[in-house]
Amino acid sequence: MREVYIAGIGQTAVGEHWDRSLRELALEAAELAVQDAGAGMPQALFVGNMLAPLLSGQANLGSLLADYCGWRGIEASTIEAAGASGAAALRQGYLAVSSGLVDTALVLGVEKMTDKIGAGVSAALASAHDADYEAAQGVTPVAVAALLMRRYMHEHGAGLPDFAGFSVNAHANAGANPYAMYRNPLTVETYLSAGMLADPVNMFDSAPEADGAAAVLLTASGEAARGQRRPAVRLAASAVATDSLAVHDRRDPLALSAAALSSRKAYDLAGLKPEQIQLVELHDSFGIFAVLSLEASGFAQAGHGWRLADPANPAIALGGRLPISTFGGLKARGNPGGATGVYQAVEVTLQLRGEAGANQVGGTNGNRPRRGMAQSLGGSGAVAVTHVFQSL
Amino acid sequence: MREVYIAGIGQTAVGEHWDRSLRELALEAAELAVQDAGAGMPQALFVGNMLAPLLSGQANLGSLLADYCGWRGIEASTIEAAGASGAAALRQGYLAVSSGLVDTALVLGVEKMTDKIGAGVSAALASAHDADYEAAQGVTPVAVAALLMRRYMHEHGAGLPDFAGFSVNAHANAGANPYAMYRNPLTVETYLSAGMLADPVNMFDSAPEADGAAAVLLTASGEAARGQRRPAVRLAASAVATDSLAVHDRRDPLALSAAALSSRKAYDLAGLKPEQIQLVELHDSFGIFAVLSLEASGFAQAGHGWRLADPANPAIALGGRLPISTFGGLKARGNPGGATGVYQAVEVTLQLRGEAGANQVGGTNGNRPRRGMAQSLGGSGAVAVTHVFQSL
Repeated sequence: MREVYIAGIGQTAVGEHWDRSLRELALEAAELAVQDAGAGMPQALFVGNMLAPLLSGQANLGSLLADYCGWRGIEASTIEAAGASGAAALRQGYLAVSSGLVDTALVLGVEKMTDKIGAGVSAALASAHDADYEAAQGVTPVAVAALLMRRYMHEHGAGLPDFAGFSVNAHANAGANPYAMYRNPLTVETYLSAGMLADPVNMFDSAPEADGAAAVLLTASGEAARGQRRPAVRLAASAVATDSLAVHDRRDPLALSAAALSSRKAYDLAGLKPEQIQLVELHDSFGIFAVLSLEASGFAQAGHGWRLADPANPAIALGGRLPISTFGGLKARGNPGGATGVYQAVEVTLQLRGEAGANQVGGTNGNRPRRGMAQSLGGSGAVAVTHVFQSL
Repeated sequence: MREVYIAGIGQTAVGEHWDRSLRELALEAAELAVQDAGAGMPQALFVGNMLAPLLSGQANLGSLLADYCGWRGIEASTIEAAGASGAAALRQGYLAVSSGLVDTALVLGVEKMTDKIGAGVSAALASAHDADYEAAQGVTPVAVAALLMRRYMHEHGAGLPDFAGFSVNAHANAGANPYAMYRNPLTVETYLSAGMLADPVNMFDSAPEADGAAAVLLTASGEAARGQRRPAVRLAASAVATDSLAVHDRRDPLALSAAALSSRKAYDLAGLKPEQIQLVELHDSFGIFAVLSLEASGFAQAGHGWRLADPANPAIALGGRLPISTFGGLKARGNPGGATGVYQAVEVTLQLRGEAGANQVGGTNGNRPRRGMAQSLGGSGAVAVTHVFQSL
């Protein structure tokens, strides 16, 4: 197996792109990543997408996007793992380059969700759950989040205000991110006054559906990844794990065992402990998932994850002990489904390169972080993909 | 990179399984493959599927099927490349094992198409084409096949009877395959008397939509793949290539350049010439695609592929120079979408093991073939996946 580097990154603004098609968004991100790497046509394209068949009547995105990028002939396919599709595509690109069979792979996450409205999108998103035993009964992602959050509050004595810090932090970090969907600051008071989507999940606890595309170019060459003015960022570990798809079948619905398994495996592969991770892009589609991811990944004990967002001393803030959602996370950068995992990879790379600007972990004095992590969830934790990034 | 072997194979009957769900079909094939290998739980599951989101409201099949197979926790994701989804999943499994990061990978193709009828399935299948510039204009797979077949007849002077041999051969081979959907013999006369679906593609020129699941267990150990009474089958080459998605954008619509690129690459990787391939499972969703695949892959010159099916001396028959569709192919074994590429892998493996029974290429006297090929197409040739199989 070979080492795998991130040679280039690209992203579009996340938002409601009613004037731009899926392929146009994908092309923009792909071109930016290739330009960033100073590279030509990649040998392979791995597309991360969840909803295009359902929302755009478009499968076969690998062929479509290879063609539209002007890379006719290259290897291409599409990877789907519900909300973790982008991260799963990154995993496949990693395997391809690591194997020695592919030298350059573009991982391209793209999703177009806002052309349809309301029930159509909810039904599409519910396809991430068990169609026969959950979705057919009306279970949707927000419903699952509400059930888990209610259970967590019951088990661990946390209240709604204890979740506010995650959304407040996300909005604070999105403020300086030109690609973020919601750049407005959010206060605890506003969070607490928001209407309920599915009690106790309120509107400001829930990441927005969005359009967007992000891309990373993978290569086996550290030299190619190292710019004149920037360090090479390496994928130090890649790990995927699953859990029961139906939440009612999980041994402990609050344990997120797929996240625990995949993060443990990633730490082993990278030879690191959780304490050595300097920032995390996690799957904060709802505040409860930020909490459960932190706990499953060894950053907090079970029942204590919410304490990392204590507004009085937030460990998760940019200047805290473990910054998360450093560009706004799913909550405020926005959550374009199958693109989200690739946005996370782009953002961790920016941090490790020291190119995060006002969002830079470690500040702008050159004290950039060396070890970051991204974790993506699909089907409310039925699948978890964890990547560890490292730079010299 | 490591060598990759096929340690186990499994398949369900192809047909209209109205009494069995997608997950039940998948489980049957998965269990058979694992039993065939004498193995336990695989480390990773790569699902090939095209239509479950559209026809069953079910995405996230990786998680669902890992769970339903009792393999909770393992890595899992879903690969989609339209009609080549199963073969694309095989490619990803190959990359995973080849990389050294995964020791055992189950590649599981599954599709459930016959619960819905008529226009719903046609619309779902049309998602393999360009949604904006083809499908929205009413283009479906059979329409594309008809346009290509008409053009081929015009360019090369072939008539409808010249295509009959492909369907006749497929039905003849399916007769002894207990997993095949159509085991009835087909005569040239019956073929010629069939009603038109989209002139000149008639009903007996078109592969049936079907339900089914097939699985292959990949391993890096030749010892594990070699049974006490059977040779080890190795994946000697794996290659994916693309073409323009929209057929009207292709330089030469009859050239199937993705098939040409991927087969050439596969020959190079395997160190073989087309003449050394002893059997081919190709994508005979329509007779014209059998013809174009044979030409693109170097088995016939452009304009001459149909001659290999000459009823007077069919090169493609079991006893011919280049047997194809040896268990019935898409036409008569049936075409369960994203499962089809894995069925092909199962069938080539049976041939190379000498376990093909009445369908054995080389006859039953122990003269089994050593080099086989499978080629899968998606989006009417927008993506082509070619695998070369080899045994000692």
